[in-house]
Amino acid sequence: MVRCSHVAPSMKTYREELFFETTTRRASINITPQVETAVRKSGVREGLVLVNAMHLTASVYINDDERGLIKDYDTFLEKLAPHSGTYTHNDTGEDHADAHFKRQIMGREVLVAITNGCLDFGPWEQSVYGEFDGRRRKRVLIKVIGE
Amino acid sequence: MVRCSHVAPSMKTYREELFFETTTRRASINITPQVETAVRKSGVREGLVLVNAMHLTASVYINDDERGLIKDYDTFLEKLAPHSGTYTHNDTGEDHADAHFKRQIMGREVLVAITNGCLDFGPWEQSVYGEFDGRRRKRVLIKVIGE
Amino acid sequence: MVRCSHVAPSMKTYREELFFETTTRRASINITPQVETAVRKSGVREGLVLVNAMHLTASVYINDDERGLIKDYDTFLEKLAPHSGTYTHNDTGEDHADAHFKRQIMGREVLVAITNGCLDFGPWEQSVYGEFDGRRRKRVLIKVIGE
Repeated sequence: MVRCSHVAPSMKTYREELFFETTTRRASINITPQVETAVRKSGVREGLVLVNAMHLTASVYINDDERGLIKDYDTFLEKLAPHSGTYTHNDTGEDHADAHFKRQIMGREVLVAITNGCLDFGPWEQSVYGEFDGRRRKRVLIKVIGE
Repeated sequence: MVRCSHVAPSMKTYREELFFETTTRRASINITPQVETAVRKSGVREGLVLVNAMHLTASVYINDDERGLIKDYDTFLEKLAPHSGTYTHNDTGEDHADAHFKRQIMGREVLVAITNGCLDFGPWEQSVYGEFDGRRRKRVLIKVIGE
Repeated sequence: MVRCSHVAPSMKTYREELFFETTTRRASINITPQVETAVRKSGVREGLVLVNAMHLTASVYINDDERGLIKDYDTFLEKLAPHSGTYTHNDTGEDHADAHFKRQIMGREVLVAITNGCLDFGPWEQSVYGEFDGRRRKRVLIKVIGE
């Protein structure tokens, strides 16, 4: 029986969804506190946490949560893929083709290391939800894996 | 011996390669069914699946598999990094520098949560192979980890 | 006691930081050897390795380590987000707003499969550290998970 007491802790996984319904078409929301809470609830001390948009017109990315930078990103993305641009995708009756491009540039997902039960972030890293076609209910998935 | 029966299921990993040889230079292929099949074969119920291009001129990304959007992406990428542009990389004798840029913008890899044995996707999420320098045999790696 | 001998190997995790202080504002450094070493030290035979910049003005990405391509990327990024451009973020007293954009386009992180104790790379894949605001000490995180 002694050897049984050396059995390693089992792998743990944990899943949670976040919900957003922004009042504007485009918005940025710092979701670091929600990700930290999910990691704490998971009980995982060493592992990985995946955070991804579940919609094709929104992003989860890691960068600074600074008002000026957020404004600069919006200007940059609107220049690269303007909402009023001409897109074949909008022939389907949608008006959000630009949001697919904005999300593609900013990325769908981030993966963050968990070390000693905490997000293993550099000094300025924040996880941000980027909405590019808001004013309706949308979801973000948090999946934790580790031990 | 009783405590032994509580031993957690061991971590599982699974690996598979997909092969592509497109007839055109650029192409988009929905690979969601192949990823779903790999997850099923892995036997993993809770975990993560990484899907990545193994070549530097191709992408795996998640977005809508809609004909108009695919066309819009191609127009957008060709505008940002035209095939006929001037690139130092092409001085090596290659003609596919543009494909390195297109792949960089669209991304190399996606990571998808596995929950209850299925891809944990939002309602419209599809995993797509983006080829930017086709007409030769190329590979995508699927790696599953979990329990 | 016999059943105990069938107990699966426990999940392993491993963490390491790399440090960089480039002499130029922008630089590209092939970090594949360091990632390979970390995977070997981890003892993980099957799993995943996350490699991410811990700063918001640097990238880790996978592409070719070819001098011409690196130069082309720099030209491309400087055209999309010039250092001398006008950015609200720089009103905070910083001069590196462009570096936030360059990093966002090139990406924060890569995730690489580990198979049979090695990086499961295609023939030309190299992991590269992209510095966009150098001349100060910066960090990259390597986190290995598997068994």
